[in-house]
Order: sequence, then structure tokens, then C-alpha cells
Amino acid sequence: MPRIDAAFDSGNIEVVTATDPNDIQLRIAKDTGSDFYQWFHFRLAGAAGRGVTMRILNAGGSSYPKGWENYRACASYDRDTWFRVPTSYDGTELTIRHVPESDYVWYAYFAPYSMERHEDLIAAAQQSERCAVEVLGETHDKQTIDMLTIGAAAEGRKPLWVFGRQHPGEPMAEWYMEGFIERLLDPADGTSRALLDKAVIYAVPNMNPDGTRRGNLRTNALGVNLNREWAAPSPEKSPEVLAVLQAMDRLGVDLSFDVHGDEAIPYNFIAGSYGVPGISDAHVAMLDRFQQTYAAMNPDFQTAHGYPKPAPGKGNLTTSTGHIANRLGALSMTLEMPFKDADNQPDPVHGWDGERSKILGRSLVDVLLAVVDDLPPRMKRN
Amino acid sequence: MPRIDAAFDSGNIEVVTATDPNDIQLRIAKDTGSDFYQWFHFRLAGAAGRGVTMRILNAGGSSYPKGWENYRACASYDRDTWFRVPTSYDGTELTIRHVPESDYVWYAYFAPYSMERHEDLIAAAQQSERCAVEVLGETHDKQTIDMLTIGAAAEGRKPLWVFGRQHPGEPMAEWYMEGFIERLLDPADGTSRALLDKAVIYAVPNMNPDGTRRGNLRTNALGVNLNREWAAPSPEKSPEVLAVLQAMDRLGVDLSFDVHGDEAIPYNFIAGSYGVPGISDAHVAMLDRFQQTYAAMNPDFQTAHGYPKPAPGKGNLTTSTGHIANRLGALSMTLEMPFKDADNQPDPVHGWDGERSKILGRSLVDVLLAVVDDLPPRMKRN
Amino acid sequence: MPRIDAAFDSGNIEVVTATDPNDIQLRIAKDTGSDFYQWFHFRLAGAAGRGVTMRILNAGGSSYPKGWENYRACASYDRDTWFRVPTSYDGTELTIRHVPESDYVWYAYFAPYSMERHEDLIAAAQQSERCAVEVLGETHDKQTIDMLTIGAAAEGRKPLWVFGRQHPGEPMAEWYMEGFIERLLDPADGTSRALLDKAVIYAVPNMNPDGTRRGNLRTNALGVNLNREWAAPSPEKSPEVLAVLQAMDRLGVDLSFDVHGDEAIPYNFIAGSYGVPGISDAHVAMLDRFQQTYAAMNPDFQTAHGYPKPAPGKGNLTTSTGHIANRLGALSMTLEMPFKDADNQPDPVHGWDGERSKILGRSLVDVLLAVVDDLPPRMKRN
Amino acid sequence: MPRIDAAFDSGNIEVVTATDPNDIQLRIAKDTGSDFYQWFHFRLAGAAGRGVTMRILNAGGSSYPKGWENYRACASYDRDTWFRVPTSYDGTELTIRHVPESDYVWYAYFAPYSMERHEDLIAAAQQSERCAVEVLGETHDKQTIDMLTIGAAAEGRKPLWVFGRQHPGEPMAEWYMEGFIERLLDPADGTSRALLDKAVIYAVPNMNPDGTRRGNLRTNALGVNLNREWAAPSPEKSPEVLAVLQAMDRLGVDLSFDVHGDEAIPYNFIAGSYGVPGISDAHVAMLDRFQQTYAAMNPDFQTAHGYPKPAPGKGNLTTSTGHIANRLGALSMTLEMPFKDADNQPDPVHGWDGERSKILGRSLVDVLLAVVDDLPPRMKRN
Repeated sequence: MPRIDAAFDSGNIEVVTATDPNDIQLRIAKDTGSDFYQWFHFRLAGAAGRGVTMRILNAGGSSYPKGWENYRACASYDRDTWFRVPTSYDGTELTIRHVPESDYVWYAYFAPYSMERHEDLIAAAQQSERCAVEVLGETHDKQTIDMLTIGAAAEGRKPLWVFGRQHPGEPMAEWYMEGFIERLLDPADGTSRALLDKAVIYAVPNMNPDGTRRGNLRTNALGVNLNREWAAPSPEKSPEVLAVLQAMDRLGVDLSFDVHGDEAIPYNFIAGSYGVPGISDAHVAMLDRFQQTYAAMNPDFQTAHGYPKPAPGKGNLTTSTGHIANRLGALSMTLEMPFKDADNQPDPVHGWDGERSKILGRSLVDVLLAVVDDLPPRMKRN
Repeated sequence: MPRIDAAFDSGNIEVVTATDPNDIQLRIAKDTGSDFYQWFHFRLAGAAGRGVTMRILNAGGSSYPKGWENYRACASYDRDTWFRVPTSYDGTELTIRHVPESDYVWYAYFAPYSMERHEDLIAAAQQSERCAVEVLGETHDKQTIDMLTIGAAAEGRKPLWVFGRQHPGEPMAEWYMEGFIERLLDPADGTSRALLDKAVIYAVPNMNPDGTRRGNLRTNALGVNLNREWAAPSPEKSPEVLAVLQAMDRLGVDLSFDVHGDEAIPYNFIAGSYGVPGISDAHVAMLDRFQQTYAAMNPDFQTAHGYPKPAPGKGNLTTSTGHIANRLGALSMTLEMPFKDADNQPDPVHGWDGERSKILGRSLVDVLLAVVDDLPPRMKRN
Repeated sequence: MPRIDAAFDSGNIEVVTATDPNDIQLRIAKDTGSDFYQWFHFRLAGAAGRGVTMRILNAGGSSYPKGWENYRACASYDRDTWFRVPTSYDGTELTIRHVPESDYVWYAYFAPYSMERHEDLIAAAQQSERCAVEVLGETHDKQTIDMLTIGAAAEGRKPLWVFGRQHPGEPMAEWYMEGFIERLLDPADGTSRALLDKAVIYAVPNMNPDGTRRGNLRTNALGVNLNREWAAPSPEKSPEVLAVLQAMDRLGVDLSFDVHGDEAIPYNFIAGSYGVPGISDAHVAMLDRFQQTYAAMNPDFQTAHGYPKPAPGKGNLTTSTGHIANRLGALSMTLEMPFKDADNQPDPVHGWDGERSKILGRSLVDVLLAVVDDLPPRMKRN
Repeated sequence: MPRIDAAFDSGNIEVVTATDPNDIQLRIAKDTGSDFYQWFHFRLAGAAGRGVTMRILNAGGSSYPKGWENYRACASYDRDTWFRVPTSYDGTELTIRHVPESDYVWYAYFAPYSMERHEDLIAAAQQSERCAVEVLGETHDKQTIDMLTIGAAAEGRKPLWVFGRQHPGEPMAEWYMEGFIERLLDPADGTSRALLDKAVIYAVPNMNPDGTRRGNLRTNALGVNLNREWAAPSPEKSPEVLAVLQAMDRLGVDLSFDVHGDEAIPYNFIAGSYGVPGISDAHVAMLDRFQQTYAAMNPDFQTAHGYPKPAPGKGNLTTSTGHIANRLGALSMTLEMPFKDADNQPDPVHGWDGERSKILGRSLVDVLLAVVDDLPPRMKRN
């Protein structure tokens, strides 16, 4: 008899019935304290060599139902290599059909990145002489917001912020951070060395550890969407944002780069702070150039697809990007990576995955070096 | 300012005060639903290059205060290599003095083995053609009791059970299981191949996942000491034991080997089912031979130190070893590894550690092969 | 008593006297059949913990005596990590002073890259579905010229040639090739995928296996400097060049990139086919752009230092770069890496080394993608 | 068109014709200066996906034609994993039939172990604090006889010698040495630590580097079979043996263990110094016990098959084993591993291979510890 479990880091599924391998019925649990849901991560046991049909009954009511169109679920036999399996969506239910080759199979919305791996990332990073680690703040679940300082602050070195995973169900953000950080710490990498001569990097690989461990899609333990809290973060509701924003105030920000995943759009793209009231021409020009540079540096990134630019003055000032541009006057962007695939360079076996996210993160070093000397001055807003 | 955190897998500490690096005061939290406590695991931040003095105020009241005598705490900068740091015990408080070399330092009672690593162990094991995995049962926290079947049951092949970590605060037990399992799955290992020709191995690497993740010393999520439940396990209090015992009934048991750590005694030793009522001479002889064989195979094991043998008829029948010998009539033993060091072959830098536990686990393959043909018949008890 | 040996792959030293650790006298052997010499590679035994002074008596007469100015010898205890040791040059002798930490120490002019490692590189490369391997020709010593075809030739895909180590004593060339090849074969690398959509890469990681194994600086087994043979390669003297040139004729060349090391100049730079008679403006412009692009992609590369450009019509047509531009009309360049360090981004511990060479090779993928669409048409010369 | 090459470390083949993939005709070259031949090692190119038939025409005249009976050739696509391919022997020719999956395929009589890997082994070993390395002597080709001292000589610690590959075409000997050495240097291995408390190990992983690199079966560069030189080694003919024997005289020998491969017999077995004139009863008893212990420790070893014991007084005193027992009076043995498979525990895919040889070498640590306290006194012969 098959069996479904999810009581592990970032697990999320509810079993309606799993007695018949051909009719396993599942539901995705809502984020703690919230109605958001889309992230799933579970383990199937007892079905090796037999076909299973698993239906997620409440897919149609999820936060981003367009995310299920042309989506294929991720699966792994070893929790290291993830591949895509046949998946269909009828507007109501998401159906996964698979013949597992091993006794246990893990399925997820995207290759997971656990808090244990996060802790290992921090531990490895601090082995480098280039890297310092500190606790910026504490979450409801008593976890910490860990910040890496890569390179050394000095006169003339610009403070650049790169952070990810405000939305915990977007683990591509932390794979990306891992690739970015690893490259910055490689002593033989000439690009990294040159960048750290001109800038100091403040990297927060995971801004939402509580949501991560709890298996949430978008919120922290309290049901709060952190990326709507930047205008007024509070110690009660959004200590994660408050901690980072206070550090930004203390350390300065010449560039803010916030890493996300997008459920629906099958491309890598950037949403910049275009709609921020009174954004300078220099900022607009650099936002354009930044994206063009990225596309030139790594063709998995592109500029043809993405969100429509907000009309002038209509930018959302509660997001990191809107707020940091508006209040701190810094160049500010959000990167979105796909849950599906990068359709401009599709990979039929893996779709978009953790490894590709890491390499896109490596490329950010190239992009930052290409623009760092020309970053526009902060707008006079604060 | 220093900072102490423990909100991760198997973390356990309470901070009384951490404002002064020279006077950090801590307490170990009790096991959930129980008065047991001794396991600690926490992270110190913000003290690189400075001396810290950390006092565990309630050490004297812990479950095994003798465990603190001549004990040195384990520390790690990378969560991979663990070393010992200066530690003293005055009968009341345990004091750790250390000058950390990195921003974050992890301290623990013994090198931890997380549930994520457990999941990776299972995932890796099932890549082998020799290994099947199944779920035996479910815990209060909805985690699973995972059993590996290594080799194939067949006429004439003896069923041998090896399981560990009934007590979650004894992670050496799972390091041991990892070493044992890895060697059994090595296709080039002639000893493993020969053993699997004569026996099938049922391995349960972690019998107490809830206690593990919660940072308990001895109990599951419900405050129950599993190794006192074997006479009458219940789905309400001890589903972990019930699941394994039912599988034993189903699959048979010719040998039961239960892996533990001992807080006080600085040696590796075995406690056998000597005191079980009516134990056969053949069983007693094999218990003796098994230990002598182990000591010959790996000198980190020894027979001079250990628990006193219970008087005839006085064995504890609620433990795995007592019960399995008594009810199932199988040869039955408990391995104890030290938290401190193996004083017959001490390692001043590491003490007893995960790597040595793994190698002791590898040696169990040698021992099993040496005795498998001569295992005494089950006593006629059930 | 110390002891010097060099009878291994690419070993080169002659011992004059090694009885006194403070007065070890050595000579570099000439290339087989030639007067070139500068490459050294030997092992010192029996001097752990004691200071040694080693003098290379004939340094002043070597092929590039300017190479010894500000040069520091490379040393390794594990044949994996190479570091620099104190070295001085008085115009006649090169003196290395070192206190080895281990019983055996390896010293070399630069981190060696053996023929066994070459064979491993080929074996690993062919595991990729993207890569085919073939033998282009055979050397005097019966070794093979191995060519990798990466990607697939197709209508509209440009044939780009990258090859190295015509001069065997320049092992940075093969480290570079390894980095370039590994990145091209990484299925998750978006830049590599995009490049292989537009081009097919023909890579010859080692054009001089005989000189490599024999420990030569510049010549093959017959004493021939391959990079002066391109105008008229012969099966008797330069079968290595003949084999590659015939393959170029067969497969076409839109770009030729020849990888070298320069003994004297402490920078990475490119020498292009500027002086080739009648070179087109488009070629000149692309040579300029190529270098600027490289410097932007990896700051270990630079354009301020290098060889003077040959006057129009004065290019050396016997080199790969001169000949391929002149006869095949293809864009053609030579990369030079330093034996010393890249003084624009110096590394006091390692100087320029194998790892940095690999990363510079990785960056070539970025550069090729940046220019591939704009490569000028072949000049109408053949 | 297919193509055969062998101009690499330990390569050996002569091509008669290779124009037709279905009729590739080959010959094994004789050892330098000798009529021995059986070792082959070559690379096939240009036959991916097509069947090849390769005939070794002179197999019937090789040194051990019985070695070809039931023999299957070893093949590798990556030079790391070696597997067996269909092979037949008609009493005259050895025929290999194979459909390669990759462009290059390496074939060998047994998984090769190159001199570069030897150098890496030495380099890695000396990283351990337990291990010293020294040069014992020099070969005709100016290579070195490298000896590892593992542990520290001290009063009461017995000097035990383990050495291999007098016959270079028996690379299983060096795989074995690698496994033995790695385990001895593992600081967490309790068996190794205990052994090094009672003994010091002198290990010579390769006694015949010249024959190794030249691709010989049994002789050094001069055509001399080293294992017939022990009675009277000379600096002219057998400096390798002379160097080791002089070190043995200097350092003492309580046990000599010489590692070999046997072409014909498909089992692991030991040939002891039974036939040495006047061998003591204690020595005979220990020879017997040693073998029984080994078989108990690793069932890939066995005692049922092997060479017939020489009659009393008829032992060959020119071999290492005969001579060391006779002249030095030390317990002395030769281990033979198969080229084919260990038929008591056959592996249809790999046969006997490098990995299994390594694990058999690991087990020697167990055996040595089991007997070290009871090693008989040296016989009073010198």
C-alpha cells in the first residue's frame, strides 16, 4: 500500500486518501495563519515499480492557479538530483502520474533547500577569510536572520545587498544565493576579486526561515507576507524585514537585489523599481542596462518576458524593491526565476532547477562588476 | 555581544543571560513531557577571537551527573569536524571555556546527526540494489520509522536486527548505523557479501525521530523512554516500539542488536541479556564470545569495563534486549558507546566522535560474519 | 642527505651536487634536440624541517632570462596545491630557499599538468553527450593528438578552434583548456548552452604530448618549435601541427584561439594577428573588441600590457595565429598567461596558478558568446 | 576507422592490423630485455557503437597461457570504473569482442595503476602525521624506490614489512597497498591505532617502477625478474631488491608480506615459506594461522586453493619469501590475487578488480593485529 509523508523540513501535503495507488488524493495545506498555498513537498513510499496517480484536489484554489498550466512536478530518488514527471492540470486538480523506480520518492513543487542546508551554507561560508557572519535578528520561531558580509567595507567600496527567499516556497532563491556566494568566495576567481575591490556584499540567503521550515509558500510563521511589510515592518509581525532594514540603514545601500520565484511565467526576468514616485532618469537607465547586461552574461536570463512596468508613481512601495528605492533612494530590483522552465532555453528533463539557479547566481558577479562603477547616486529621498 | 541560538534540528539550550561573554549562563531544557535532560546543542555567534565562558547552571541536576565528570564539550566551526574544548564540572555547574576562531560556533553534547541527514542516509541506501526501504510506523509528530532490508530473505538466511537511537540524545548510535549500513552496501566488500549470503539484515537507523528533532535526551515527543516500553508498547505512548516489534514478529529475529550511548562510562561495551529468566547456556556462551570477537575485531571495543551483569532472573524485561531475549528467545544485546572517549585508546583532540562510531559500526559486519553460523537457536519462549 | 629526482612525467632537472642541503646545485636540461631550456620540475626528498638552498646554475643562459626577474618558484607537498617559495635571480643563477614541511616536496616552474591527467581529461569529457573525441594524428613518440568536438556541427553554427600547449613547458595552457571544456560540458550552464547553439567548438587540449612528457620547454620530441611550423608543417618534423591544420581545412575555422604562457610578462594578454598582410578592418576591430570583452568578463585579463603590435605586413606567418589568419583568413589570436603572477590582481601566496588558469578558461565561454554573432567573415585568402 | 594506441604509462600492445573493426590483430610486446609477456593495456578509438573483434595473436605463447582460460578482459570508458568484456581463448589466440559505448575505450589485462597515481599515493600518505617517506634506492630509469614508515619505531614494536609489485604487470598489488595504507592512516580507525601501538609498518607500494611504466609483465627495465634476485641482488641488475634488502637489514624484519597477482588461479591465497630449510614449527603454525585468520576476516580470501606446499627443504630461496625466511629468519609470505575473479565469491560484472583489492588490503590490518602479539621469534639463521 502506498504511503505519503511530509513531516520534514519544508514538507507540505495533506492526505485525503492513499489506499489505492491509482487514486491518491491530496491537498496542499495553507500557509500558517494565511490563505496562501501552492508549495508542496512530500515523500511517497511503497510504490516502487508500480504506477501511481496522485491528484492534488485543491490545486485550482491555490494562490497562483496559472502556475499549474504547463507545469510538471519535480521528483527525486536521492534528494540530490531532481527531474520532472508527467503532470496535468484541468483547471481544478493537478494530477501527477509516475512509475517510481525506488521505494521512496520525494516530490516537490521545486527542488527544496532545507534549513539544515542553510546552516551548512553559513558554516561553509565563514571558513573563508573574505566572509564574516552575523545575526541580524530573530524570528517568531526563534530562528535567526543570518547575514554574510563578503569583502570588507572601505572608503569608496559600495554596499550592495543581495537577499532572497522572503517567500519561503521559492527555494530557487536560496540555490541562487548559494551559487552567488560560492563564487564570491572563490579565491581564484578574478571577477570576484575585482568586484570585492569595488564593493562590499551584504548577503542574506534566507529571509524567511520560519516559513521555510514550516513548508509555507509566501508567509512567515505568523501568516505575514514579508514582501508587503517593507513600508512599516514591525517586531511583532515582520521582525525579519525589520532586522534587514535596520542593517541597511546602518550599513548603507547602493544596490538592492531581491531574489524570488514566479509561479506562472516560464522565464527569468527582473522587475525593477520603475514605478517608484520620482525615480531618476539615471536609475531608470541603469535598471535597463542591468537587465541587458544580465541577458548578455547568461542567456538563461532574458528581457522579453516579465511583469508589465508599473506606471509612473504606481510602484508598490510595500515591497523591498519599491521601498528601498523610495525611502533609501537606492537602485532596487527583484529577480524572478521560474518554477517551470526557462522557455528561451528549455531543459525537457529538469526544467528550471537548483543547479541552473546556482549558475544564474554565479553570473550575478559578472553583472555587478560590469555596472558597479556606474551605479547611479542614491536618489535624495531620505 | 555574544548570542546563543538553538532553534534548529536537535537544538537544546535555554539562555539565562548572554550579555557578558565572560558570564554566559545557560540551562538545558527538559525532554518534552519528562524530567530527563542532558543533551545540549546550540550555536554561539559574535564571539570570534574573544574568550567566552559558558556555564550550564543546571548540569548537576541532569539525568546522569556522572556524565559530566571528565567530560569535555564538542565544538565545530563547520558542522562537520567536531573537536573537544576545555570543560569543567564542579558538581553543580558545567563550565565551557573557549576562544572561538570563527563568527559562529556550534557546541553539542556529542556530534549531532540531524533528521535531514537521516533522510539523506535512507535516500542513499535505497540507491543500492541490495537495499529495500519501508515505513514501519508513524510517530506522534507524524514522522516515520524507516527500516532498511539489506540483502534478501531466503531459506537458511538468518534475520538479524540492528537498530539505534531509541534515545535521541545519543547520536553516536546513528553515526554507528551509517557506518554499518555503508559497509553492507559496498559491492566490493567481501565480508559484507559473505554475510548477506548467510543473513538478511533489518536495520532501523533511528527509532526516535521525534525526540531527535526536538532535542530530547531520552524520550519521544510524549515524554516516553522507548527502551522501557518493549514489554507493552502502545500505539498511544510508544508507536515506535510497537512498529518495530510487530515487524520482528512478522520477519523473525535471530539476533537483536540495539545501539546506544552511555553518559558516564568512557568505554565501548556491550550489555547482554544475561539476566533474562531461564537464559540458555548457549546464549550466555554466545554473548561472551560475541564481545570477545568484537574486541578482537576493533580494539576501540573492549570487555573490561561496562555494566555489572544482572543476577539470574533479574534482567530488565522492559528494554529491547531483555524483552526480545525473553519473549522472542533471540540472542539480544545493547551496545553502549561513550560520550567522552574510549579510554583504552583515547584521542585527546576529538574524544569519541562520529567518525569513530562509524568505523565501530563497520566492524559489526566482521563480528556478525564471525558468529552467524554459530548463533544459538532461539530459546523456546514464545 | 637531501636527494633530487625528476624521472617522472614532465620532470626536468640535472643534479650537479646535492650532498649539502645548503648548497644544492642544479641545471635545467635542454629540450630534446634543441637548445631551448627553462622548464624545471623535480622532487626533493630528505629535507623536511631543514632549510635547503637550491641553485640553478645555468638559469642565466635559459631561453628567457627575463623570466627569472621577480619570479618565485612553485612548490607543493601534495601535488595538488602549489604555492610560491622565496626565489632570487642574480643574472646568472636562480636560487630557491625553502624549509620544506614534508619529506617529499615537488618544485616546478609552474603547476604541472601530466599526460595521465590529460588522458583523464579526455576520458571525463567523453562522458558528456555533448562531446565527441577523436585522434587527429600521431607524434614521434606514438602519442596521439586528441581533439574534442563539443556541440554539433550544423548549418549556421560557426566552427571555433581552441587549442593549447604547443609549448609543453606552458602547462597553464592545459589548465586553461580544462576549465574551458568543463564549463562547456556543464548541462546547467546557460551561457554554454547558448554558445553551442551558435557554434561548434573544436578543442585540442594538448598539441605537444611528447614535449610534455619529456619535460621540454618549447619543442616536441624532435626539437621542433611547433609554433614556427604552421606555414609548412611536415609529417617528419611537426606531425602535431599538420594533423590540426588538416582538420581545420576539413572542418573550417571561423576563429582560432591558441593558448600559451609567457615567461617574462606578468599579465594575461592576447597577441592577435594584427600584422598579417592585408588584414581586414573588420578583423582588426574584432581583435580589439575581443580583448576588451575579455577584460570586462574577467579582470585577471587586461589589455594594457602585452607584446607590441607588429607593423602592418610584419606578422609572423609561421605561428598558428599568423598562418591561420593569413591562409585560412580566420580571426586568429594567441592568449598569453604569466608564469609569475597577474600583477593587476596579484596573489602573493600562489601567484598565477592552475586554478586561476582554469577560471580564465571558463570565462572564454562568456567572451565567445559575446562576440560569436559578430565574428567577421573570413578574409578571402585561400 | 578504428585505431589502437598504447604510448602511455604501462601501455603495451603492438598493432598488426587495425583497418577492419571486425578483424583487429594485435600482439603483446615482450618485457624489455626478456621473453616474458602477458600484460596488455591499450586504447581503442573510433569504434563507438560498432562491434569490434580484437585478436591477440600471440596469446598462446605468453608466459602463463593458463591465465587465458576463463579469462575476460577489463575495459573502461572513464579510466576509473573497469568492467569485464566477452573474451575467448582457443589455445592460440585471445579474442575480445565488444561494442564500445564511447569514442575512446581503454582495455587492460587488469585495472592499471600508473606511476602518476603512485606519486599521488606517496604525496597523500605523507600528509599524515603517522607517516614518513624516504627514498630507498634508484632504478635503471632513475626512478625511486619509495618506502613509507607508518607509525614509529620503538622498543617492543615489531617491524612488519609489506611490499608489492615486484612484478609490474600485477597492478592489483598496488591497489592492495593503497587500501592497506589508507586504512593505517585513518586516525579514527581503532584497529589501525592498536596495530601501530604494537608494530611499525614499512610499506613499499611499488618495487618495480621501471617495469610499471614500461608496461612489462614481470621484469624491470633490464629484463630481470626481481623475485628471483633476493639471494644475490646486485646494483647492476636488481637495485630495487638490493635497496629493500639493505633497509630490512638496517630496520629489522619480524614479518615480510609480499603482494602479487596470479595469472591462472581464480582465488586469493597465500604462499608461505613452508619449504625453507629448517623452518621452525612455530613458523609453520603461524603461517597456517595467518591464512585461517585472513579467511575469517575477509571471505574474498580463502585457503582451499593455491600453490602446492613445497616439500621440506625445497623452498625457492631466490624469492623474497624464501630468502627472508631463510636468511633473516622472519615469518614470510606471498599473497596472490587473481587476474580473473575470486571464484568463491564471484562478481560477474567486474571480476576481481582494483576496489576489491583495496578492501582486501584494508583487511590485512585486521589480520596483522590478530597475530602481532604471537609472531614467532625469528629463526636463528643470520
